[in-house]
Parts: sequence; C-alpha cells; structure tokens
Amino acid sequence: MTADPLPSWNDCAAKRGIVSFLAHVTDDASPGFVPLPERVAVFDNDGTLWPENPIPFQAAFGFHELCRRVAAEPELSASPMVQAALAGDFGALVADGYAGLREVIALSHAEITTDAFRDAVETWLAAARHPRFGRRYDDLTYQPMRELLRLLDDAGFKNFIVSGGGADFMRVWVERVYGIPHERVVGSAGRASFALRDGVPVLTKSLDHLFVNDKEAKPAGIHQFIGRRPVICCGNSDGDHAMLQYTTIGNPRPSFGLIVHHTDAEREYAYDAVTKSTGKLVAALAEAPGRGWQVVDMKRDWNTVFGPAGS
Amino acid sequence: MTADPLPSWNDCAAKRGIVSFLAHVTDDASPGFVPLPERVAVFDNDGTLWPENPIPFQAAFGFHELCRRVAAEPELSASPMVQAALAGDFGALVADGYAGLREVIALSHAEITTDAFRDAVETWLAAARHPRFGRRYDDLTYQPMRELLRLLDDAGFKNFIVSGGGADFMRVWVERVYGIPHERVVGSAGRASFALRDGVPVLTKSLDHLFVNDKEAKPAGIHQFIGRRPVICCGNSDGDHAMLQYTTIGNPRPSFGLIVHHTDAEREYAYDAVTKSTGKLVAALAEAPGRGWQVVDMKRDWNTVFGPAGS
Repeated sequence: MTADPLPSWNDCAAKRGIVSFLAHVTDDASPGFVPLPERVAVFDNDGTLWPENPIPFQAAFGFHELCRRVAAEPELSASPMVQAALAGDFGALVADGYAGLREVIALSHAEITTDAFRDAVETWLAAARHPRFGRRYDDLTYQPMRELLRLLDDAGFKNFIVSGGGADFMRVWVERVYGIPHERVVGSAGRASFALRDGVPVLTKSLDHLFVNDKEAKPAGIHQFIGRRPVICCGNSDGDHAMLQYTTIGNPRPSFGLIVHHTDAEREYAYDAVTKSTGKLVAALAEAPGRGWQVVDMKRDWNTVFGPAGS
Repeated sequence: MTADPLPSWNDCAAKRGIVSFLAHVTDDASPGFVPLPERVAVFDNDGTLWPENPIPFQAAFGFHELCRRVAAEPELSASPMVQAALAGDFGALVADGYAGLREVIALSHAEITTDAFRDAVETWLAAARHPRFGRRYDDLTYQPMRELLRLLDDAGFKNFIVSGGGADFMRVWVERVYGIPHERVVGSAGRASFALRDGVPVLTKSLDHLFVNDKEAKPAGIHQFIGRRPVICCGNSDGDHAMLQYTTIGNPRPSFGLIVHHTDAEREYAYDAVTKSTGKLVAALAEAPGRGWQVVDMKRDWNTVFGPAGS
C-alpha cells in the first residue's frame, strides 16, 4: 500500500479527482495519455498557494517600503496619493484609472536596480510578520497545495506560478518555498532597462509597458512565457476565470480545473462574492459545476491549512 | 577514454575553453562550482544556431506570407509599404522609425490566432527550401552548436534561446530541433488577447506593446523571462553584446562568453562589419579579447557546419 501523497487533504471529490486524473494522463496505455513536454500545470499564487488577507502580501511589502521611504524623504508625503496610501484609502488610489496606485507602487517598484529590489524583499521577509498569524509571510503557504505541487512534480508535470503578483517579488522566495525555478514564474512586470554603471551591468526596474497578469491577461501571459496550453489550472478567484477557461474548454488533451474556495474563517479566511482584500469569486464559482472544475471547500476538505511553523 | 563530445569542432581555444569551464563549474569540490539552479546558458539564434543569410529565416517566412496574402487580397498592394516589401526595398521599410516594417510584419504576425500562426509556420517550413542550400530551413542548424547544446544539457545546464526572432515563430520547431522546451524560448513578442469565440478560447496575436528582444533589451528579456543571470552566453553579433556583458562582467559566478564569427564564405557566409543581412559584428568583437570571450572562427574551428540532411 502506497502512502497517501496528499495527507493534508480529507477524502473529497477534488482529491479523488486529481489522483484519478493523474493516473489517467500518465498511463501511456490510456487514450488520455499526456506526453511529458505537455504536462504543464499553472497555479495562481495569492489566495491559491498563500493567503491574500488582510491585504495581499506584496501590498504589505509595498506599504512597508513606502513608510520607510517617506521616513527618509519626508517631501514625498506632499503627494495626495502618498497621503491616501498612508491613510489606507485604497479607494482614492484606484480612482482615475489606477493612477494613484501606480504612483505609489512606483516608489517601491521602479527606479531601483533588480538586485536592490531583491535585497529589499529579502530584508522585509526576514523581519515582517503576518498581523494575525504572527509568522513570516513565506511560512504561510498552504500545506495541502504544497503537497499537490509535489505530487504533480513527481508525476512529471512542470508547475508554473501564474500570478498577478510581481515576478521580481515572487522569484525571491518561490524556489525555496515551492521548489519552482525562477523561469516558471509568470507575474506582473514592467520593462527593466540595462546599462553599464561604472563599468558594471545593472538592470533598473520600471513600470514602462507594465504587464498586469490578471484576468484575460493570464492566458496571454501563459502563452507568452510558457508557450503551451496547460492541462491543469488551480486558482481561487475571478482573476483566474480566463485561465481556467483557457485550460479546460476545447483542450484536445484531458484537463483539470480546481478552485480553492475560502470557507474557513477560523483557520484562515472566509470570502467569495464579498472580500475586504482581493480574490472576489463569483463568475468562476458559478461556472464550475458545468465545466467540471473541482471546488475545494477549505474548511471541509483540508485537515491542515499551514502546517507547523518552518515546515 | 571518453568519446569527444564535440566531434564537429577542431581542437581550438573555444573548444578547450568550454570543456575546461564545464569541468570547473560542475565539480562540487571546485571554488567555481555552480549549483544546478544557476546553470543557465543563453543562446542567440539567428547567426548563432542557424544562418541569417541571405535574409533572416523569419523574414523569408514573413515575405512568403505577404505574397500569399497579396495574391488573395490584391487591395493590400495599394499600400506603399507593401509595394516596398514586394520590391525588396528594406530601406523604405525601416525609414520613419520602422513604421513600414511594422505595417508589413503586422500582415503576417497580427490579427491572427496563435493556433493559425503556428499552422502557417509549419506549412511554410514543410514546403520552403533555403535558396542556396536547397534544404528545409529547420534542417540548417549548425551541427557544432547542436553538439554544444547537448553537452551543456548533459552537464546540468538549462539552455535558453534569447533571440530577436519571434517567440511564436521559434516555438514551432525549437523543441524538435534543439531539444529546448517552449518555456525556454525568449523572443520578440507583442501582447496576445484572449477571448471566447463561439464558446471556444482563442488567443489573437498583436503587435501591441511589442517587445523587440535585441541589444540592450536582451538582458531585460533574460531578467523578465528567466529571472537569473546566465553563466554562459553564446552570440554572433553586436545584438548580443549587451547579454555578453550582462553574463560575464562582475558575475559572482564563473562565466563563459562565446562569439560565432562568420568566416566561411565557402560552406556558409563570411561577414562581420559589413553584412547584407542582420548580424553586424564590430563592438562585441573588439571587446572580446579584453573580456576573455572566445571567438569561434567558423572556417578554422568547425570541421562540419550543417551535417547531413535530416540529421
């Protein structure tokens, strides 16, 4: 008898579904056999592999950096948008076509070298603690999903992150935490610029040609970075709706869609149509039964959410 | 005695250099040991892995598609830029900030679904023959470079294409020809758009936010797609100069730069400062000795260029 590869999952339709799907697509005598190069699985990150409450973790980083910069350069606080951010008025930031949000994000995510940005993320990760759980942010990934990543990896799948989060932000920690190499991270990004500074190569971040990898942009990002249609897609919100459709509708290969439904206010958070952060889930949830997408009821289907600290 | 892993290479500094570099970086007792996740090698394509004469192969495809479209839609030939392209007047196309070239490229590379584009490339590849060599274009890759790709793969390196060519164009054939998976192709690309058409997902190509992966954009493309600094970089022109610098200058890991110098008019082509196609090589060649970049003299250093047909 083989050990259960998904011990943090209770017996449920999603667990049975993925196990039987993998048996089907990896059996070269099966009509649904998927050759190795086509075994592509895509995962949203915020709300799918780690929480997005009380605010997306990258926003917590950005806010921390903003406070640090304003402390050092008080003249920055003359900007109404910086004032809005410091007051937590996100409504003001996203009015007027996200101009305010863009201005505030630029203060931590642009005109900085890629090396300095990586160092800033590492410094923040080492010191910051989640306000509710009191743990490092990168110690709060979902144990059941880490088990799923491992199971897919063992089945010859390539796991990719396809997230609205910044690629540069995620690459600092995804390899260590998920075992996913840098080139399998598809995220939001502006174009960096290259120059020799004092004879040494530097790349400087910018928000130019910003690619926001969310909603309908996710299939486009998958095409641009991965160049193949996935056969497995895991998400948690309407931001993942288009990539769930792209993965499962009319795919000549067998396909598998999964939605993490946040139903566990006690151990994590409970939200779908109404959310205080990101992660609104209405349209994708309504479409799930008809498409055969598995909906994970976090409270019912997962016996563990985070696992012990440092696991 | 081990078989020579690079039999198409004569004994030369570049060959000795790469073999000794690999021994150094894969020996975990060596101070220059490079851990597996950091073994990233980047290769230009046009002029480095296959020829770029008499015109870049993708331009041959584009011209073929243009003729096909004009035959079916003669009204297209009313455009002065289409007339210039049909007359081979590339000067007119690149005047005025490449506006003409962009218009002509759009006729074959935009407002077409990604699936239809892939089919068009496959159809062209199957029928087209190189005007001088009379062989399929994808049967004209350099055998010595295919041996090098294989040697690096065996040494635990991930090989990436980093080319000014279109990612969608290259992904049709690179896996079959080089053994390089789709997600390791960094190329020029516009943003595709996603929609359900009659209930079926389609991605439509566009030239919006066109990323031209050449010169200083190559290190930026490497950062955006690969997210790691390479330790090996192979190119052939000043278009690869910036990525050679990014790979080798101030890299905390050992690094290796290589330039394919086209010196063989008899078996292939001979050009550097003056070229009838792309591939101008002046600045990178001048910098090579000081940086320790190996320069391959194609005529002297390669005993085979293409190998037998269908190899």
